[in-house]
Amino acid sequence: MLNPHFQKLEENYIFPLIEEKIANFKQTYPTTEVLNLGVGDVCLPLSLKIAEAICEGVKEMSQKIRGYGPCNGYSFLRETICEHEYAQYGISADEVFISDGANPDGADIQELFDSDTIVAIPDPSYPMYHNTVLLSGKKLLTIPLNDKEGFIPKPPQEHADLVYLCTPSNPTGIAFSKEQLQGWVDWAKKTGALLIIDNVYNVFVSSGEIPPSIYALDGGKEVAIEIRSFSKSAGFTGLRCGYMVIPKTLFIPELHALWTKRIDIRRNGISYPIQRGAQASYSDAAHAELQTQIDIYQQSAELLRSTLSNLNQTFFGGIHAPYIWWKVPGGKNSWEFFDTLLEKTHIVGIPGSGFGPCGEGYTRLSCFLSPQIAKKASDALYDHLSTN
Amino acid sequence: MLNPHFQKLEENYIFPLIEEKIANFKQTYPTTEVLNLGVGDVCLPLSLKIAEAICEGVKEMSQKIRGYGPCNGYSFLRETICEHEYAQYGISADEVFISDGANPDGADIQELFDSDTIVAIPDPSYPMYHNTVLLSGKKLLTIPLNDKEGFIPKPPQEHADLVYLCTPSNPTGIAFSKEQLQGWVDWAKKTGALLIIDNVYNVFVSSGEIPPSIYALDGGKEVAIEIRSFSKSAGFTGLRCGYMVIPKTLFIPELHALWTKRIDIRRNGISYPIQRGAQASYSDAAHAELQTQIDIYQQSAELLRSTLSNLNQTFFGGIHAPYIWWKVPGGKNSWEFFDTLLEKTHIVGIPGSGFGPCGEGYTRLSCFLSPQIAKKASDALYDHLSTN
Repeated sequence: MLNPHFQKLEENYIFPLIEEKIANFKQTYPTTEVLNLGVGDVCLPLSLKIAEAICEGVKEMSQKIRGYGPCNGYSFLRETICEHEYAQYGISADEVFISDGANPDGADIQELFDSDTIVAIPDPSYPMYHNTVLLSGKKLLTIPLNDKEGFIPKPPQEHADLVYLCTPSNPTGIAFSKEQLQGWVDWAKKTGALLIIDNVYNVFVSSGEIPPSIYALDGGKEVAIEIRSFSKSAGFTGLRCGYMVIPKTLFIPELHALWTKRIDIRRNGISYPIQRGAQASYSDAAHAELQTQIDIYQQSAELLRSTLSNLNQTFFGGIHAPYIWWKVPGGKNSWEFFDTLLEKTHIVGIPGSGFGPCGEGYTRLSCFLSPQIAKKASDALYDHLSTN
Repeated sequence: MLNPHFQKLEENYIFPLIEEKIANFKQTYPTTEVLNLGVGDVCLPLSLKIAEAICEGVKEMSQKIRGYGPCNGYSFLRETICEHEYAQYGISADEVFISDGANPDGADIQELFDSDTIVAIPDPSYPMYHNTVLLSGKKLLTIPLNDKEGFIPKPPQEHADLVYLCTPSNPTGIAFSKEQLQGWVDWAKKTGALLIIDNVYNVFVSSGEIPPSIYALDGGKEVAIEIRSFSKSAGFTGLRCGYMVIPKTLFIPELHALWTKRIDIRRNGISYPIQRGAQASYSDAAHAELQTQIDIYQQSAELLRSTLSNLNQTFFGGIHAPYIWWKVPGGKNSWEFFDTLLEKTHIVGIPGSGFGPCGEGYTRLSCFLSPQIAKKASDALYDHLSTN
């Protein structure tokens, strides 16, 4: 009767486990400030322009009726997204599906596929990919990553039906070059694999060398679904709004209709005022506010990068993504280092092993940090690592 | 590779199909007012007090950080729900899980069970139950309902692992008496079945004879999960907030932990300001506004009931639920009658066959109507049915 696949999951999911460890630390040291570079959560207040747009949406609902919205999201938002994100790639508004976030989308899309589906997932990766493959009883094909190849995954020799790729990447903070990503698209086309591109960190890309979307690549619209979110680009982690693009031109053309059917049956659309807020994130005024926030996060990343560099540490990422993937100094394992780091520097990182066995020996540092916290973290790292 | 179970679904899902029919009608008769008694969507504006609370939540986010919230919802909302809905039944706040609506909860709960699970579903029922059982490859056991038994389902002779029961019921508008519901609890206890109680219309119950919750019954906390929503009780259809109660005392004690694990992995909580709005629905000021709205819907139901009575029509429901289940006059089938009703009276109903084969020969009328629309619908029914 019970879904037996739950037994395949780790006993404890990493993020709640870390919350618990932080709570325990705070109980033991109630006056110590914890520097949270753990969960990748925004740390700057919501844009005033977005807040205004949400409140206007709510007021509108108190004056006239806005009941159930379209299951795929309001066209005002889907059209705005197409105009600002995809105009040059020819994605149309009915290929965009609004959701309550990238995490649900990345998990839920699996329902379109049967249990014989082979799903390739880089190791390390965001744990949802792995866990939802296990939970649905599909077949898992791990793509082990390593430092020699800069943690960039290469297409596997074996056949895969689906591949999850995150670029700019969580947890490694690296981003695929145009050439690397084109290699995946060409492979997918040749072997008949569908790419699920988790592209929620795209606003952090600061070089023309890094494709802003999978649809910038030749053939991308034939082989890839792209998942994005307002969480990191517009500070929506607590508001919940994202979107998924399912092109009608995919080599499996049924997917668009199947997903439409799925959400018609299982979901009832996304909060109207939140969609108004997401739309407002594209206004000039909000955009300026948001760019300032992204700049701050990037400066925090730069400060941490230079700190680790000066301390002769090995690390990846932190340029086109808000994460730094830091090789644990002194050969400790990830969880041991988590405890040491918290105790000595009061910094919370995420143990790399939480993202897969190949993440062992690394720590992920989130750069969603105010300048003050970034400075404190930098100082603490200098204090601890210079003296060791 | 593709989930083969999608092929088991009807070609067209009923609600989008009806939207399409309405759109076609409006195109043909652009000046005719359509009286929409179809989809059960609220038709009165959002309570001002709730709107204020949501905007305060949004403003708070623009002043300080509210990032990712707890996956099971904020404790302020879970505790408020327990205090107002479940104080007398001993449900604790950590047994309540906040969600973005009852529809997703009712579908998603199935992931905790394997594909051998036998799921009993009354016919007619809300189509999501049936469709999600088919989609997940589980075994369906239909409980046919009929007018002689007042469309009240009785426990089946065959074994079932799960049973979906909706009370007050969509689409039939009836509500289970205490005795009827106790019969189900006793049967579930005896046979080892888990009840999934869809109780989103509970605010329409206007008699002490009808249990407000499954947990009012002896043994309810051992055999039942209860799903509720702010959609119909507080006008949240466009805002998205509901909750599911999974007691730790269930005869399958693992379910609470499995659901916790599932939402930790797959979801990222519910919009913070929307949860503030849901909490505010329990304030005295909002409660008075909401009661006025429920009263209006109940008066609309009463007007339609008396209209159909005066016209010697056969129907069920409309007392403790916002739906009237009307036996199609003249022996037409549901879809034929849909067209006739729309053409002759401009009323949109939902064909009963959309809720299952045993719904054939019936029409569901939603009573979420302003007094003006209810009056117009009543007049149109008098005009059409008196002359036929």
